[in-house]
Amino acid sequence: MRTLKFTLQYDGTNYVGWQRQATGISIQGLLEDALAPIEGGSVTVHGAGRTDAGVHALSQVATASLGAAIAPATLTRALNAVLPADVRVLSVNEVDAAFHARFSAIGKVYEYRIVNAAIVSPFLVRYVWHVQQPLDVEAMRHGAEPLVGAHDFAAFQGAGSTVTSTERCVRSIEWEQGSGFDAPLILRISGDGFLRHMVRNVVGTLVEVGAGRLPASRIPQILASRDRQRAGPTAPAQGLFLVRVEY
Amino acid sequence: MRTLKFTLQYDGTNYVGWQRQATGISIQGLLEDALAPIEGGSVTVHGAGRTDAGVHALSQVATASLGAAIAPATLTRALNAVLPADVRVLSVNEVDAAFHARFSAIGKVYEYRIVNAAIVSPFLVRYVWHVQQPLDVEAMRHGAEPLVGAHDFAAFQGAGSTVTSTERCVRSIEWEQGSGFDAPLILRISGDGFLRHMVRNVVGTLVEVGAGRLPASRIPQILASRDRQRAGPTAPAQGLFLVRVEY
Repeated sequence: MRTLKFTLQYDGTNYVGWQRQATGISIQGLLEDALAPIEGGSVTVHGAGRTDAGVHALSQVATASLGAAIAPATLTRALNAVLPADVRVLSVNEVDAAFHARFSAIGKVYEYRIVNAAIVSPFLVRYVWHVQQPLDVEAMRHGAEPLVGAHDFAAFQGAGSTVTSTERCVRSIEWEQGSGFDAPLILRISGDGFLRHMVRNVVGTLVEVGAGRLPASRIPQILASRDRQRAGPTAPAQGLFLVRVEY
Repeated sequence: MRTLKFTLQYDGTNYVGWQRQATGISIQGLLEDALAPIEGGSVTVHGAGRTDAGVHALSQVATASLGAAIAPATLTRALNAVLPADVRVLSVNEVDAAFHARFSAIGKVYEYRIVNAAIVSPFLVRYVWHVQQPLDVEAMRHGAEPLVGAHDFAAFQGAGSTVTSTERCVRSIEWEQGSGFDAPLILRISGDGFLRHMVRNVVGTLVEVGAGRLPASRIPQILASRDRQRAGPTAPAQGLFLVRVEY
């Protein structure tokens, strides 16, 4: 058996997320179903992270063990021939058997895109959160500062998670404002790992700050409270992109 | 009655094109249907150009005469509230009664996007023509040169057109190659007007040149022949964008 590393890009709009669910189409399911006839038997694929329903990936990583003797480049073409056009295998590489998409990852980078204008371009509307109220980007930058570093992020964790520790290290948070009438405002966040809905809850909270409904100075208290009720709402899935997984 | 100028942006994927058809949803129909309840009666909208089924517009212009006393900014909001998210009214302006979206236009700019790579990003796939065979961009630039200027473009006109003259003036054609693994190769063409399918037929012909199936030196003969059979195939609609209308 060889261990193969798959690098994938997908538009999450039409899917229930990375992970197989009882109903609906998942990215994991699509990839496993595409691999099975090549392997001549069922294949289990492990993803670096579970993107939620509607979340996109510029570069998701997955691993699987395969017995089939097929060259990585041939496998890439074979998979792209059967996968829907909104899910692409960018590359397949043979890796050491010890390599695991999830457990070997040492960091992840996400981006969250907001259009803060009256009108959203039809070409962006599936990939952004449309916030019409003017946002104070400087206030959002101030609000983000206390979140950088190693903290207990329980206040920003979505319900239903089963992780044992809610400590994570956020390496950086940047807000970047593009130019043009509806150029997205982009939050770029890098860290060793993220709790369930953590990026979307951080964004939802910082948008409260940007809209003037929450002072930036309140963020340290929210973080320290470990209370999900005190943080802001969960930003919509469609603005979130997994940008890359670091190993 | 006031004459209003509408500037629109749309993703043409889901539509039969700008013009109302016997069946299917058109952009013109959507706009007319959105205006009717505001006007309290039927409204006829004139577009600057008929984008075909599946063609997109970054900035299409339309005019209509309205009796309803509604401020342009209010009308913009009202229309965007009822139009689908893939069709946006960017602005409404009151113009002189003599202004007509189609007859007052003195030029148009189109872009055509090609991904010339093995894989197309899920985020671009609806907006490009995927050409896998490597294209020689320099040859496509040479092939484009003889098309610039005032010519009879009958060889590049699609069937079914009823125009009286097939003479048009192409002001410029540029091929721009972006960077990145699947950055589109973009043809930008500017002219006083374009025949039916003319941009797509020019692109289809230049791709024959880029793929090495047609020498660039053959373009002047094709143009002079006025024979549609001698030019290349019609490039797919989904790569084409109406960029702007000039007045």
